[in-house]
Amino acid sequence: MYRSKTCGELRMNNVGEKVTLAGWVQRTRKMGGMTFVDLRDRYGITQLVFNQEANAELCERANRLGREFVIQVEGVVNERFSKNDKMPTGDVEIIVSALNVLNEALTPPFTIEENTDGGDDLRMKYRYIDLRREVVRKNLELRHKFCIEVRRFLDSKGFLEIETPVLVGSTPEGARDFIVPSRMNPGCFYALPQSPQTLKQLLMVAGMDRYFQIVKCFRDEDLRADRQPEFTQIDCEMSFVEQDDIIKTFEEMTKYLFKTVRGVDLGEQPFLRLSWNEAMRRFGSDKPDMRFGMEFVELMDVLKGTGDFGVFNEAAYIGGICATGCAEYTRKQLDELTNFVKSPQIGAKGLVYARVNEDGSVKSSVDKFYTPEVLEKLKEAMQAKPGDLILIISGDDAMRARKQLCELRLQMGSRLGLRDKNKFALLWVVDFPMFEWSDEEGRLMAMHHPFTAPKPEDVEKLDTDPASVKANAYDMVCNGVEVGGGSIRIHDAVLQAKIFDVLGFTPEKAQEQFGFLMNAFKYGAPPHGGLAYGLDRWVSIFAGLDSIRDCIAFPKNNAGRDVMLDAPSHVDQKQLDELQIDLRPTEA
Amino acid sequence: MYRSKTCGELRMNNVGEKVTLAGWVQRTRKMGGMTFVDLRDRYGITQLVFNQEANAELCERANRLGREFVIQVEGVVNERFSKNDKMPTGDVEIIVSALNVLNEALTPPFTIEENTDGGDDLRMKYRYIDLRREVVRKNLELRHKFCIEVRRFLDSKGFLEIETPVLVGSTPEGARDFIVPSRMNPGCFYALPQSPQTLKQLLMVAGMDRYFQIVKCFRDEDLRADRQPEFTQIDCEMSFVEQDDIIKTFEEMTKYLFKTVRGVDLGEQPFLRLSWNEAMRRFGSDKPDMRFGMEFVELMDVLKGTGDFGVFNEAAYIGGICATGCAEYTRKQLDELTNFVKSPQIGAKGLVYARVNEDGSVKSSVDKFYTPEVLEKLKEAMQAKPGDLILIISGDDAMRARKQLCELRLQMGSRLGLRDKNKFALLWVVDFPMFEWSDEEGRLMAMHHPFTAPKPEDVEKLDTDPASVKANAYDMVCNGVEVGGGSIRIHDAVLQAKIFDVLGFTPEKAQEQFGFLMNAFKYGAPPHGGLAYGLDRWVSIFAGLDSIRDCIAFPKNNAGRDVMLDAPSHVDQKQLDELQIDLRPTEA
Repeated sequence: MYRSKTCGELRMNNVGEKVTLAGWVQRTRKMGGMTFVDLRDRYGITQLVFNQEANAELCERANRLGREFVIQVEGVVNERFSKNDKMPTGDVEIIVSALNVLNEALTPPFTIEENTDGGDDLRMKYRYIDLRREVVRKNLELRHKFCIEVRRFLDSKGFLEIETPVLVGSTPEGARDFIVPSRMNPGCFYALPQSPQTLKQLLMVAGMDRYFQIVKCFRDEDLRADRQPEFTQIDCEMSFVEQDDIIKTFEEMTKYLFKTVRGVDLGEQPFLRLSWNEAMRRFGSDKPDMRFGMEFVELMDVLKGTGDFGVFNEAAYIGGICATGCAEYTRKQLDELTNFVKSPQIGAKGLVYARVNEDGSVKSSVDKFYTPEVLEKLKEAMQAKPGDLILIISGDDAMRARKQLCELRLQMGSRLGLRDKNKFALLWVVDFPMFEWSDEEGRLMAMHHPFTAPKPEDVEKLDTDPASVKANAYDMVCNGVEVGGGSIRIHDAVLQAKIFDVLGFTPEKAQEQFGFLMNAFKYGAPPHGGLAYGLDRWVSIFAGLDSIRDCIAFPKNNAGRDVMLDAPSHVDQKQLDELQIDLRPTEA
Repeated sequence: MYRSKTCGELRMNNVGEKVTLAGWVQRTRKMGGMTFVDLRDRYGITQLVFNQEANAELCERANRLGREFVIQVEGVVNERFSKNDKMPTGDVEIIVSALNVLNEALTPPFTIEENTDGGDDLRMKYRYIDLRREVVRKNLELRHKFCIEVRRFLDSKGFLEIETPVLVGSTPEGARDFIVPSRMNPGCFYALPQSPQTLKQLLMVAGMDRYFQIVKCFRDEDLRADRQPEFTQIDCEMSFVEQDDIIKTFEEMTKYLFKTVRGVDLGEQPFLRLSWNEAMRRFGSDKPDMRFGMEFVELMDVLKGTGDFGVFNEAAYIGGICATGCAEYTRKQLDELTNFVKSPQIGAKGLVYARVNEDGSVKSSVDKFYTPEVLEKLKEAMQAKPGDLILIISGDDAMRARKQLCELRLQMGSRLGLRDKNKFALLWVVDFPMFEWSDEEGRLMAMHHPFTAPKPEDVEKLDTDPASVKANAYDMVCNGVEVGGGSIRIHDAVLQAKIFDVLGFTPEKAQEQFGFLMNAFKYGAPPHGGLAYGLDRWVSIFAGLDSIRDCIAFPKNNAGRDVMLDAPSHVDQKQLDELQIDLRPTEA
């Protein structure tokens, strides 16, 4: 070993010990005849001292050390004259007697500090330098700890971690696959799994009873912010269970993780459960942020047909939220909110507001269309108090209007500081619809995935009214983010074939793509279900990050590129020849 | 839950309890008015009893149960009249009061028994049925336990598990890459990593200090028996270490794993260390099976030029092994051995033997060429006793002849029952050559990989005699299998460039392919090193398997196919269009 101690472990009780340390030069300072060097490694920072008088040559060499040089020093631990109580090693320093430069370093392209001067692109290109910053490193340490505790918990509950293959077959239902040409089978391709969904179901047919895997998954989608082409799932499946068993198991795991990894006690009570219908009605979202209230109030009775405002009179939905204490919002602030809801990504036609004055009277942007009595009714319906601001959105597509109001609610929550990163509000959203209509595909699509079991009482409606069928599906939501989701699966080949039929598969196509699974169901499939968590997202919530990127060691950018490795890139013609594929000529 | 207990947990102290069980019908037996059903799940087998007299209708339904039906039963735990001490639940049975068929099953294509009647192909096609067999399931349970303990150990030593990307850049040095066309970057490809080698080195540059990962790796090689296109590594790296630190750390881990996972105490002493030269000299292999002796004796002094046997007189190498107590081998047995060494996969020209008779005289296949005195010297050199059989191989390529003799030694070890699967002989092979000559490529190749550090004292020979340079590389060998290997890495950009030069890279090519790493070395790279274990292979040794296949849930066959999923397969034209690639027309 190049060291006898790390840079994070020396304390007062080590004073007098002779030690060897190794690490990176964080900073050097000359003060009079002394040179101080902050030596950094993963475990901390220790101050080194060089004394011009005691050893001029050594001190001179220390003065020539640059930032991020890798050095090894020998010396004696000494009590500091002026202690630094901001760091655990702040009581001591090392009086250096020998200095060995292990590797020099060019000046790093940005500072290795909490708030670096490096922009995103530069940080990603030199990620190996960026990761030296404590704020980034801590995220990876948290991720490690998180996974250790996930495994500890699931192992204690009898789950087996079983690896499923990465080179699988392509199944176009769902997102787009990454595909891998097979040299040994020319013209054929593997696909990278979007999730091990069918494989874990086969493991249940195989009698593995309780399975999990922390596993990479792949989706070739156009990347939105905070999407990665490869991401990590905590993938779980259980046999002989009903929805409630799964929810209880993973609620217990969640509480365990919050306690052991994050030091947060979520208490004894079960998480709230909201049906999908209720979540949409009260929050306009299937992943409501429950850290604050500001629930939707439907205002169709109050405002539709009760005045001359044509927009409301033609609306399919009118809903409002009450922003406590915001009646004083200025014209400018209200314009900002209006512009926000009218922005292309939200897409509302406009925003109606109503202030409740200190005297209880209501002053709204649609005063001229409504009598004071109607506005009084509005105030009542909204349970608004003097000083509150009512914000109203309407639309001719109820679902779309709700989603717009949801965005507004989140915006107001942020503005009012109600979305505290250190507060955690968890719930289950249950009773999802089985299908949703896709305008693009012109058919019903599985809302969860095609292996989700319908509620038994709804099975007969698969023929008559499939859009109304509810699924035994559930999502776990934390702070407005879907951290996990799952379902009870179909374990019956006949019902599975029926679902493929509703989804518009011909029997031949269903057989071609999912025959292996439907066939497996004929050989004794147990009732089973499970769920999968998005690890990147969950860790980023624990870390209080806005983006998943900084809890990933080597993330890709929004164009799917690793700018550090410069991947993807061109390959040798020999490689294409071996695979018997050709690139199409690029258009000029 | 569909059950209150598993099929593995009921004992005498549960007698009288009302329980619900669920599982698979292993077997049904009718005896008089009774029907017995063995109900199986992952945890065990419990006997169910149906009584014709007590409930004729229920018993009738039990009689109609087929093998592998999935059922749920209610009943009361009862003490068995005739106990079965071969199974943990053998003292009790369930007097069934209710039976619910959860899923019927077609007759499985092979028996779910320790020795199944299913061939390899059938087992792989129906792997979800094959995995129900206890012998296969136990391997996956062992693999789970193995990984849990690896993580427990490494976590306790301060290693962080950090995920590295699966979509990386292609680096043709080494084996062939699987490549993945990028839709968002037409004409460009990702590659799947052959190992996270360069990424883990970047993590050391990033100051992560101790890294590990249990990670999938990919190689598009022509599959030999027991090779998989995707395999799993336990990948580790440490900073500020020397070779000895790494060897000690992982020796400790190995002892920990043998103790906790396999119940084997490997004792206090360090593992044997053999230099590569010595391993080749004494065993003709860089991964000698040390469960038995039968070491090579070089016989050049004894047999070259001391008689009229031209083969020996022209040989560059003559070596022998002594098979204790095999002097009685018949002509037929000796012919078998001769045919074995002459087979194409071994490639020896022939085999010379010499028996030591009970009276101490030597009778050999080359008697006519040598005087009795020479044969006496042979006996002495081999330290052969009466009753022993000396087997001799020679050749004009010393390395090749040693490898042939190595195969013969292993063959004799097997024949003599010296390769006990429950005995474990571990050692480190160290001081590997840095390079080996490739006839195919017409240049020196890295024996380990191009990032391996040469021994400091050999660096100057890189210019003058590169073939003689030794590396700071080491392999861990168990029972003749290389389970892991690693090296101290280069952490200096100049030395790394030098190695690429020796390997025949132009500076431009080196920069193009490994510029990201050499660049990183300029920003403060610490001394570092590590190793990687082959998880599949190690687990298969722990499990006593001949093949790695049965410790993998869903392995591929020798053509790289998953016959269960039928992957790889053809993809839609739309997918190729999106990727802007074309398949070459197949030749008729």
